[in-house]
Amino acid sequence: MGGMDRIRLARVAVNWLAEPGNWAAYRMVATDGPVRALERMVDGDVPDPGLRTAVAARLGSGDPYAVADAAAERAGRLGARIVVPGDDEWPGHVGDLTRLALDTERRVDRETAPPLCLWVRGRLDLAGTLDRAVAVVGARAASAYGLHVAGELGFGLAERGWAVVSGGAFGIDAAAHRAALNADGPTVAVLACGLDRPYPVGNTALFDRIADTGLLVSEWLPGQEPLRHRFLIRNRVIAAVTAGTVLVEAAARSGATQTMRRALGIGRRAMVVPGPVTSAMSVGCHELLREHPDARLVTGVPHVLEEVGRIGADLAPVARTPEQPRDLLDDQAAQLLEALPRRGSIGLDSLAARAGVDVRTAMRKAARLEQLGFVVRRDDGYALAPKPRGSAPSGDRPA
Amino acid sequence: MGGMDRIRLARVAVNWLAEPGNWAAYRMVATDGPVRALERMVDGDVPDPGLRTAVAARLGSGDPYAVADAAAERAGRLGARIVVPGDDEWPGHVGDLTRLALDTERRVDRETAPPLCLWVRGRLDLAGTLDRAVAVVGARAASAYGLHVAGELGFGLAERGWAVVSGGAFGIDAAAHRAALNADGPTVAVLACGLDRPYPVGNTALFDRIADTGLLVSEWLPGQEPLRHRFLIRNRVIAAVTAGTVLVEAAARSGATQTMRRALGIGRRAMVVPGPVTSAMSVGCHELLREHPDARLVTGVPHVLEEVGRIGADLAPVARTPEQPRDLLDDQAAQLLEALPRRGSIGLDSLAARAGVDVRTAMRKAARLEQLGFVVRRDDGYALAPKPRGSAPSGDRPA
Repeated sequence: MGGMDRIRLARVAVNWLAEPGNWAAYRMVATDGPVRALERMVDGDVPDPGLRTAVAARLGSGDPYAVADAAAERAGRLGARIVVPGDDEWPGHVGDLTRLALDTERRVDRETAPPLCLWVRGRLDLAGTLDRAVAVVGARAASAYGLHVAGELGFGLAERGWAVVSGGAFGIDAAAHRAALNADGPTVAVLACGLDRPYPVGNTALFDRIADTGLLVSEWLPGQEPLRHRFLIRNRVIAAVTAGTVLVEAAARSGATQTMRRALGIGRRAMVVPGPVTSAMSVGCHELLREHPDARLVTGVPHVLEEVGRIGADLAPVARTPEQPRDLLDDQAAQLLEALPRRGSIGLDSLAARAGVDVRTAMRKAARLEQLGFVVRRDDGYALAPKPRGSAPSGDRPA
Repeated sequence: MGGMDRIRLARVAVNWLAEPGNWAAYRMVATDGPVRALERMVDGDVPDPGLRTAVAARLGSGDPYAVADAAAERAGRLGARIVVPGDDEWPGHVGDLTRLALDTERRVDRETAPPLCLWVRGRLDLAGTLDRAVAVVGARAASAYGLHVAGELGFGLAERGWAVVSGGAFGIDAAAHRAALNADGPTVAVLACGLDRPYPVGNTALFDRIADTGLLVSEWLPGQEPLRHRFLIRNRVIAAVTAGTVLVEAAARSGATQTMRRALGIGRRAMVVPGPVTSAMSVGCHELLREHPDARLVTGVPHVLEEVGRIGADLAPVARTPEQPRDLLDDQAAQLLEALPRRGSIGLDSLAARAGVDVRTAMRKAARLEQLGFVVRRDDGYALAPKPRGSAPSGDRPA
C-alpha cells in the first residue's frame, strides 16, 4: 500500500466505496475502525442495505485497495497529502456534523456524516488555518453588486487575520478568494472533486494561487469528477470547518439555503447579506432572512466579526481545551467517560455495555466527547485523551 | 363659537394649548371631558407642572376660544372638517396609542397620547378609508432604488384596495402617494402642520390631487407651522391608523426607527425593505432588521399583504364588532364593564371606585374597552356602547 499506512489508505478506500457523507459507512468506521470496516465492505458484510448496494456497485468498477494506492501516488505527484482524524492538523470541529438531524428524504441532505479523511494541497497547517475561518459563499451567476460585496468581505476578513473558506465556483466564491489573496490572507477552497482536476477549469490560475499561499481541500480522491450532487455534499464541510457562513447572493430556492441550514444545525453562525429587492440574485438571501429567525443580516466585515467573534469566545476554547470540567457533561456522557479504561482502548460495543447505555447513544456521545477533547478514537475503539493536548493522541497517525 | 359645537371646539382649543400627543392633557380630557378640561387649563388648574407651564405660555399668545373659532372658520373656507372621538368617521384604533410605554427622556418620544381631534380635508370617510390601510414611509433624500420600490408598493397596494398612508415629504412619501393616485386608489397624507399650508410647498400640486381623491389629515390647527419636532409627534398617528408600516429607505439612526418602534409598540406590523449594503439610504433599514426581531423583512406587495392580512383577520373584526365575548376580558376590565350604569354615563373616578380598581388602571382599561367597542367616551365620562354599532354612540358629536 505505497508510502502511506494502511489505516490512512483504508479511510481513503472506504470513502471511495461509500462516497463522502454516508452515515452507515461513518458508523462502520467508528465502530470497527477503518481497516476492519473496509474488510467487511469488501466481503459484502454491510448491515445498511443502501450502502451494501452502493459498495457492491463500486466494487464492480475496481479494487478499493488498488484505487486507494493509485490515488495516493497521484496525490504524491501533485504535492497533496491525506489528513485523517488523529492527525495534528485534522480540523476536529467537523465532528460537530454528528449533531445534524436527518429529517429529510433527499439523499444530498441525508449524507451529512463527518468526513473520513481530507485531501489537502498547500503549505499551511489545515487545523491551524481553520481555527479562525469564515465561509463566504453565494451564486455563480453573481451580479456586480454581489461580486463587490464578496470582495469587500474577503479582503476585510483576510486583513483581520481570518481565513476565507469557499468553494471554487465562478461568481461569489472566486471573488471572495481573489480578494483574500489580494490582502495576503490565507484562503481555503473546498472542492467537490479530485484536487488534480479542480473545477471549473476557468479558475485554474486561481486554484494555483490558492495552492501556493492557501489550501485546496477535498474529500474526493484525485481523479474523481465534480458530479452535481457532490457540491451539495461538500457544502457541509464548508459549514463545519468555519465559525460561520456568509451568504452574499443567491437566487430563489438556491442550494445555499441548505448550507445555511447545516451551519445553523451544528451551531455555526448563518449570516446573510441583503440586496436590492429588485435583484433576482438577492431573492434567496431575503427568503432565508424571512424564514430562518436565526439567520443574521450582515452588511459588512464588522457585523461578521461580531457574530463569529462571539463564537470564537464561546466555542473555540472548547475545541482547544481537553480538560473541560466534567460536571458540564450529561449523565450518559459521564458514564461513558468513567467506563473508559485508564490505559488502552475499548470497542464501542464493550464501552456501551460497561457504561450501561445503548450503542447508538454511546456512539453519539462518544463523538461529542471526542470533539470536546475527552476521548480519542483509535483504530480499535475509544481511549481516554492524553493530557496535555498535543502529545500522541491516537493510533491513527501518519506512518 | 362659530358653527361648531363647544365640545368639538374645546378639543381644538386644548390641542392648541397643549400640543398634540401630550399625555397630561389627554388624561384631563379623558377625566373631565374637553369642555371642563379647557376651563381648568384657562384657569391655570393643571396638575402636571410641564403642561401647566406650556399652557401658561400659550395663553400669553392668544385666547384659546378665539383661536379655535378662527381655526374653524379658516378650515371652513378650506373645505376641511374637524373629526373627534365619537364621530362615525373617527378612526377608533388610534386609541391603541394608550398602550405605548413611556420609558424615554426625549420629549418627542413621550408625546404619544392618542390624538384629541383630527382636521380632515377630502371627500372620503376617514375611518372607512383607514379600515384597510398601510403606511409607506422613508427617507426624503431617497435613492432611485427607494423611489422605485415606494412606487411599486404604493401602486400595488392601491390596486388591491388598500389605502396608502404617508407623510407629505419629498422622496419616499411623495413616491408612494403618486403611485397610489396613479392606481386610482385612496391615499392619505398625514401632515405635521395646518391643512391650509401643507409642507413642503414643492408638493402643493400633489397635496391638491390627494385632497381631490384621498384625504389630507392633521392634528394641527389651520395656520400652524411644520415645526421640526411636530413631524416626530405626527409619526405616531401614521403608525396607529394603519395595519402596518413599511419602511422603504432610511439613513442611519433615522427618525423612521421611532415610527417603527411605535408601530410595534401598539401591535402593528413593522415591515422593512432591505437594499444594497453599499447604499447609505438602506443603513437605517438594515439597522432596524438587525435590532428589532419583530421587524419583518418584506420585498414587495405580497409580503406586505401577508403581514397586514394577518392583522386584518385578527384585529380589524375586533374594531368592527362591539359585541365581543366578555370572557375575553381580564378581571379588571370585566369589573369596570359591570360597574357601568345601564343608562347614562359615569365619570372615571366614580367608575374606578365602583369597580374597585385604581384610577390609572381604570383609565387604561376603559380606553381598551372603548377601542374594543364595549364602552363609549362621553363629555361627562364613560357609558355602555349602544348595540348595534352605528346608532348614536356618544354625546361628543357634530352640532
